[in-house]
Amino acid sequence: MKNIGIGLIGFGTIGAGVAKILLENKQTISDRLGAELELKKIADLDITTDRGVTIPDGILTTAVDEVIGNPEIDIVIELIGGYEPARTFVERALQSRQSVVTANKALLAKFGNELFATAKENGVDLYYEASVAGGIPIIKTMREALTGNQINSVCGILNGTCNYILTKMGDEGADFAETLKTAQELGYAEADPTFDVEGIDTAHKLAILTSLAFATEIDFEKIHVEGISDIKPVDFAFAKEFGYKIKLLAIAKNEGGRIEVRVHPTMIPKEHMLAKIDDVFNAVFVNADALGPSLYYGQGAGMMATASAVVGDLVDIARNINNNNLRRIPDLSFQKSRIKPGNYRPMSEISSQYYIRFSAHDKTSVLSRIAGILGNHKISIASVIQQGGGKGDTAAVPIVMQTHKAREKNLRSALSEIDQLDIIAAPTAVIRMESDL
Amino acid sequence: MKNIGIGLIGFGTIGAGVAKILLENKQTISDRLGAELELKKIADLDITTDRGVTIPDGILTTAVDEVIGNPEIDIVIELIGGYEPARTFVERALQSRQSVVTANKALLAKFGNELFATAKENGVDLYYEASVAGGIPIIKTMREALTGNQINSVCGILNGTCNYILTKMGDEGADFAETLKTAQELGYAEADPTFDVEGIDTAHKLAILTSLAFATEIDFEKIHVEGISDIKPVDFAFAKEFGYKIKLLAIAKNEGGRIEVRVHPTMIPKEHMLAKIDDVFNAVFVNADALGPSLYYGQGAGMMATASAVVGDLVDIARNINNNNLRRIPDLSFQKSRIKPGNYRPMSEISSQYYIRFSAHDKTSVLSRIAGILGNHKISIASVIQQGGGKGDTAAVPIVMQTHKAREKNLRSALSEIDQLDIIAAPTAVIRMESDL
Repeated sequence: MKNIGIGLIGFGTIGAGVAKILLENKQTISDRLGAELELKKIADLDITTDRGVTIPDGILTTAVDEVIGNPEIDIVIELIGGYEPARTFVERALQSRQSVVTANKALLAKFGNELFATAKENGVDLYYEASVAGGIPIIKTMREALTGNQINSVCGILNGTCNYILTKMGDEGADFAETLKTAQELGYAEADPTFDVEGIDTAHKLAILTSLAFATEIDFEKIHVEGISDIKPVDFAFAKEFGYKIKLLAIAKNEGGRIEVRVHPTMIPKEHMLAKIDDVFNAVFVNADALGPSLYYGQGAGMMATASAVVGDLVDIARNINNNNLRRIPDLSFQKSRIKPGNYRPMSEISSQYYIRFSAHDKTSVLSRIAGILGNHKISIASVIQQGGGKGDTAAVPIVMQTHKAREKNLRSALSEIDQLDIIAAPTAVIRMESDL
Repeated sequence: MKNIGIGLIGFGTIGAGVAKILLENKQTISDRLGAELELKKIADLDITTDRGVTIPDGILTTAVDEVIGNPEIDIVIELIGGYEPARTFVERALQSRQSVVTANKALLAKFGNELFATAKENGVDLYYEASVAGGIPIIKTMREALTGNQINSVCGILNGTCNYILTKMGDEGADFAETLKTAQELGYAEADPTFDVEGIDTAHKLAILTSLAFATEIDFEKIHVEGISDIKPVDFAFAKEFGYKIKLLAIAKNEGGRIEVRVHPTMIPKEHMLAKIDDVFNAVFVNADALGPSLYYGQGAGMMATASAVVGDLVDIARNINNNNLRRIPDLSFQKSRIKPGNYRPMSEISSQYYIRFSAHDKTSVLSRIAGILGNHKISIASVIQQGGGKGDTAAVPIVMQTHKAREKNLRSALSEIDQLDIIAAPTAVIRMESDL
């Protein structure tokens, strides 16, 4: 077994974590691998900031070309994030016949198909365990463990920031803005939290999981995305009354041969394993034909957990290199020749149960008028909670309904009609309820 | 890529599940693998019972030698269970340079070291994902995903029968015997449930996980094993009052360089992920230095879930064969040269918090006498629940205590002294409490 040369591009938090593992856990890694992972170079524009890990002399450099194309470096780790220059660096490394490990979900969600094609052309590996659910080995599980299964669905809590905010809002009855502020103070949310709270980061990860589950090309654009910023404390209170928790869920389902891909706040029965995932933790729930339900839980972000996934990939690729066996696993779980564009179900055609919260003026006629319109659109009501305001007929009160399974487009038509009624005081809030994940 | 010939020994429930996957999911498997897994032969003494899966002509046989040594068969699946003839068949297959996939935890717990040595000598693979936690890919995770980590502890709910019984006893307040009967009626417990309810099956699995975590030889004999048959409904009631759940836990911990290996009923804080695993489900909780806590959840037994793990191994080995890369992963996670006998901590030297339930005659002196003896043995009490019987001083009432962390041997000395007091009506019950898994 020969030692494997490692080069790292991007010496931020995760990069420092990877360096720390490679230096501090050298022994346990070589005890497993039977060879060493030798950290040869770390390239970053900033090599003076103290990252909390002591790097031996001669390793840090500001010149990316000391990593890319360096014949001593077998595997390049890309941890810059974002599209450019990450994309160019990954392409150049692959073209130099260096294998690449990346944690960059945005890059793969947008340019994954091309990058994997480049890896294949050049006979090298492009591994990405850290790109989805941080330290949780869900990519390995999907690509290598569930290989005897047809996947029915993959659902995940894939963003720790959102899960922290939703957990706190549910536990403490606090509103979104103040909980976000706390999350920012604790370092759980970025200064600009848009990517996280609007569901985009979650959707990037779902784009990758969908491809692994259903033998489809990566297609981020097909995902319906809603964030968590509109959820109100009152919604958590009603969810609890119905026996549900609210989570930002990434859902990819095969429904009769068509694939649903969506990210949105979701009410889940409180007994469901996904409802039990709290705080910053992530989890992926897979429903497969032979295995049945399974769940994978852990830290979806953070320095050391994400670095753990990166190093797991390094060891895998090192084994491939030492056994002359690069390209051992197809990039996206299925042989490239079997991967097709997905047959997606448009959002208007999905079926779901719905939680609907109307803000209505407290008149006696209100419930019958709402129920009538819902009925006209084939939406049947499973239960209603109407809290009389007792303040006369001008105050707006919440009327909350749980529907039976209904078509999204029927719901949307009904709501646009209802929201024009004079008895409705504010736009109606909707949260999908998933009871059979 | 060449097709891979598969032979199966043992056509029971799991064997039928494997055949079903290989026949019904042929397409999805070859879409991933790029080759076919061809089921060539199934050997069983009983080939007439209908197993619910239609096997093509010429495959079923009563002659095991049509599988072992058959040059058309690259991988032999052993699903007989037990020690013999399973051990002989596995050895002979390995010696015939056939790779082997097994679900047999008893076999590996007792003869794993020898069998893995035979596999290595013959340059073939012996894979065993299905032997621990059924369909959950915990072996792959430990061997291939957490390779950058030092493992602090591995804890698991590894027996569905026990977890079903404990869940029902906790939910319904029923006693052990009647819950076991229900479990047997539902097919969740065997007619002779000893292996399951006495913790032996769990310990077999823990023996394997311990080796994977700590680079030690498999050593079943070192595991301290207690079953669940002595737990009383009242213990669940008190556990709830303390905010705990009772689970049969397999625990392997590295405590300051010494390894604790034990299987016993354990009180776990109800917020802990392992406390949330209900019914027949299994879960493994791993605490690793870089990844931190992670959990893997799914069906730990049953026809299709276990078969899913077997087929996952087949695909892995098929990739190894087709890439001329057998022996890619060290059998027990670490290179054989690095595996040592374990340095185990004797049970008497472990530290734990304890739940202690005394059956005492209701006298005013009882608490001070018990507390005095505990104090003499350096056991400090965290909380006490004493329910006055109000029936005079002859009735026995439970006195329940939660201790701070104490030494097991101190506890045992204290209890043997206490149990001889005239105020004690029945042997004292103890359940360990683990708050920092």
